[in-house]
Amino acid sequence: MTSVQIVAGGAGFIGANLVRRLLEENGVLVVLDDFSRGRREYVHGLADSDRLVVRECDLAQRSEVQAAFADAARRGTVAEVWHLAANSDIPAGVENPDIDLRGTFLTTFEILRAMRAFSVPTLHFASSSAIYGDLGSAVLHESIGPLLPVSNYGAMKLASEAQSCAAAEAYLGRVNIFRFPNVVGVPATHGVILDFTRKLLQDGSVLHVLGDGTQQKAYLHVFDLVGAMLAIRRREIVGKVEVVNIGPVDDGVSVRWIAEQVVQRVSPNARIAFGQGNRGWVGDVPKFTYSTARLQSYGWAPALDSRTAVRRAIDEIATQHGL
Amino acid sequence: MTSVQIVAGGAGFIGANLVRRLLEENGVLVVLDDFSRGRREYVHGLADSDRLVVRECDLAQRSEVQAAFADAARRGTVAEVWHLAANSDIPAGVENPDIDLRGTFLTTFEILRAMRAFSVPTLHFASSSAIYGDLGSAVLHESIGPLLPVSNYGAMKLASEAQSCAAAEAYLGRVNIFRFPNVVGVPATHGVILDFTRKLLQDGSVLHVLGDGTQQKAYLHVFDLVGAMLAIRRREIVGKVEVVNIGPVDDGVSVRWIAEQVVQRVSPNARIAFGQGNRGWVGDVPKFTYSTARLQSYGWAPALDSRTAVRRAIDEIATQHGL
Repeated sequence: MTSVQIVAGGAGFIGANLVRRLLEENGVLVVLDDFSRGRREYVHGLADSDRLVVRECDLAQRSEVQAAFADAARRGTVAEVWHLAANSDIPAGVENPDIDLRGTFLTTFEILRAMRAFSVPTLHFASSSAIYGDLGSAVLHESIGPLLPVSNYGAMKLASEAQSCAAAEAYLGRVNIFRFPNVVGVPATHGVILDFTRKLLQDGSVLHVLGDGTQQKAYLHVFDLVGAMLAIRRREIVGKVEVVNIGPVDDGVSVRWIAEQVVQRVSPNARIAFGQGNRGWVGDVPKFTYSTARLQSYGWAPALDSRTAVRRAIDEIATQHGL
Repeated sequence: MTSVQIVAGGAGFIGANLVRRLLEENGVLVVLDDFSRGRREYVHGLADSDRLVVRECDLAQRSEVQAAFADAARRGTVAEVWHLAANSDIPAGVENPDIDLRGTFLTTFEILRAMRAFSVPTLHFASSSAIYGDLGSAVLHESIGPLLPVSNYGAMKLASEAQSCAAAEAYLGRVNIFRFPNVVGVPATHGVILDFTRKLLQDGSVLHVLGDGTQQKAYLHVFDLVGAMLAIRRREIVGKVEVVNIGPVDDGVSVRWIAEQVVQRVSPNARIAFGQGNRGWVGDVPKFTYSTARLQSYGWAPALDSRTAVRRAIDEIATQHGL
């Protein structure tokens, strides 16, 4: 029977990149997306309609999720769900917690319910380094605690991890929890590079930066992220749940450096105006050291480090904007 | 101005014991409870109606929670919220995840929303050792990870912790997260001792036990639990969030031993019939070693160990049933 994979949030930034790669396999892909950030055009025409189904679905709505899974099940055996749907506007979720409750958690909750109803054994879940919160100078590896997320986004990602683990105990066969770092690339739908690029397109003379620019973060190119997900998926494990930090192996780059690079590419004569403090917004973590030792021990290494990934993404995003 | 404390789930087993102790302080106590497990009689008459207000409230319903907080705010300055409301039927929550979503998580979500709206600075949250899941032989201390709960109850307690941490970052002044062990005492509303007692009252000749009786758990008497919560509340901390395991200092007792003790007290001639396997239900953790080193380092020690706590609770519950 035909093998079917569902990609929830598959028309978004990371989803669209994953879909491209999964289409190299046999079987049918069903993309579910509410198109709040994702766009049909990101996945349109990548394959014939018998191999790639793109369906609008509010993944926090039980009836819509159940109907979408029922439709997928009619096309073959639904073997895997990739769940990448989430609110991606962290400050908006801090302002109004309902946004992350619906977009980041209830999506997971309803997907798990549908997986149980349709006996889908395998979940790949896009979690986030945001679940760690601000642990100061501690190295963030998978065995550290307590987990004290500082944003509702991080809280609802952790809630999703937890609910997935409980589902693994009760009915799933395997859950891979990928803790994503900051990811860059195209088609960009949000993030610091896109923000800077848009600002400079509006006013090419000055780039206003939230905070003093000293925030330092590691960035992974979406190409490497998808490669890591597929590597973890291939790996056999002892239990049912695998939790892995995905990220580059370097300490990252500062916001100041990113601002300078975007200015250079988009509007070389622009002045950069920094704000105060080393946090861009409530819920932002200024600097952290994110351990990817476990993933490296699996033999995986990124092709691009943070600097190269950011530089390439800046160029890709500029190109996306016709520059 | 009068100081007001809200006790959510205050008519339940632990809530009612906490309320008794908090009434020794000045100010007004407002008990909010949906009376699904809790009962009015557990707190009725403990104080005059100007010092103790008992109000029915579905704590997962936004409008009801907001109205209850508005009423509390009219009585004085609401300084602290004790949140002990949750689903306490773990197997029911595994069967139907909506039960823990509503009862264990949305209660927290709505309480936090109300705390923000009414500028209440301090939250005391009753979390659970269930957030750790089944980490095998690892000692469960507060700095361990990953947190992989095996029940929806544990998942939604972890979600509540996470959402409280994010709230601390954004608007709260202090959050104490108490990770409760298995707690025994009266007024019992659920738990293994009550189950065994009820079974023997129905049929005094045999006690059927789920699993083979080798599950071993540590138990704390509710008297000690409340004492620990108050000790943690008094302690000054550096950040805004304090996470503490509360529990006895011993390794606990087996289900077999508990069954024997209940039989001895309730129906001495009953035969005990064990089931198979060392898990009573999906989501149950057979044995774990729960570290209370942090709490002990604060100078706290329980008055009763697991054996003494269980024996006393068996006697209290038998008395509660007129035996």
